Amino acid sequence: MMKRSAFLIVAVTLAGAVALTAPASRQADQGGAPIYVKQVPHGYRDWRLVSVAREEGTLDDIRAVLGNDEAIKAYREGKPFPDGAIIARLAWSYDSSEENNRAFGRPQSFVAGTPKNGAQFMVKDSRKFASTGGWGYAQFDDGKPADDTVMKACFPCHQAVKDRDYVFTRYAH
Amino acid sequence: MMKRSAFLIVAVTLAGAVALTAPASRQADQGGAPIYVKQVPHGYRDWRLVSVAREEGTLDDIRAVLGNDEAIKAYREGKPFPDGAIIARLAWSYDSSEENNRAFGRPQSFVAGTPKNGAQFMVKDSRKFASTGGWGYAQFDDGKPADDTVMKACFPCHQAVKDRDYVFTRYAH
Repeated sequence: MMKRSAFLIVAVTLAGAVALTAPASRQADQGGAPIYVKQVPHGYRDWRLVSVAREEGTLDDIRAVLGNDEAIKAYREGKPFPDGAIIARLAWSYDSSEENNRAFGRPQSFVAGTPKNGAQFMVKDSRKFASTGGWGYAQFDDGKPADDTVMKACFPCHQAVKDRDYVFTRYAH
Repeated sequence: MMKRSAFLIVAVTLAGAVALTAPASRQADQGGAPIYVKQVPHGYRDWRLVSVAREEGTLDDIRAVLGNDEAIKAYREGKPFPDGAIIARLAWSYDSSEENNRAFGRPQSFVAGTPKNGAQFMVKDSRKFASTGGWGYAQFDDGKPADDTVMKACFPCHQAVKDRDYVFTRYAH
């Protein structure tokens, strides 16, 4: 217990320090409550591709997962994600392409339309985000961070893949 | 006609010169016949994302289109693709994800599985590939270039989007 308490004090202190430089972060005085990333990671549209996916149902989108250099390196080397790794999930409307269908001679082609379901991020910082498995979660809709009520669903769901450091998406070779 | 003949001579000469440094290229002595790219463009898996798509039917894949720096710059600035621009199309099997479906609580999730339908490229070189709209086409299956009989279908189909410099894929913002 001694060790754990000491660790929590360090974590809270660090979270407080970070709050000074990242004004939109949740305040450290909320104790063990999860904190979420409130600023869009810089330059993420330039990051390299991890993989692609399609979600039917309510989400109804086509998506790409990108990673910053630290994330891509860990993926490729099969190593744990280091602090600083960020994974981005972009999504777009799933649009039938009449143009492509004409070229193929049959209706079969679906392309990315307009941005949809926000841009989501997982930011690795094992101390700052210790209460959510070392990952801070973020969602931005038109650049604005989603409500914390929305964000509370992230970590419980990602616990399903705790054995892969809470990351669902596998690297597409 | 004078000008055009002169241009053809220059193009054939250049194609011959390139053949010396790219041994797998088709020989220039085939005259106006299309030439195809026979070497995998270097480092394409690190390129930035243009867009994503899903093809049903015989192709039955999920795909990502990436661009090298020259291609991405042209896409973003809405400018013509300059010589040196390369666009890559990667594709994977369209796999239902049981893991994701469990997390979502319903069958809705499809992810990139194993590589499928080869890796395809369009390489812009307005002189070398003058007979196919300024683009050289390539397809590699397990790293081996596809037969020219396969490649002959590329340009006729891409002519459908001549007004967009023969490029089907639009940039996903």
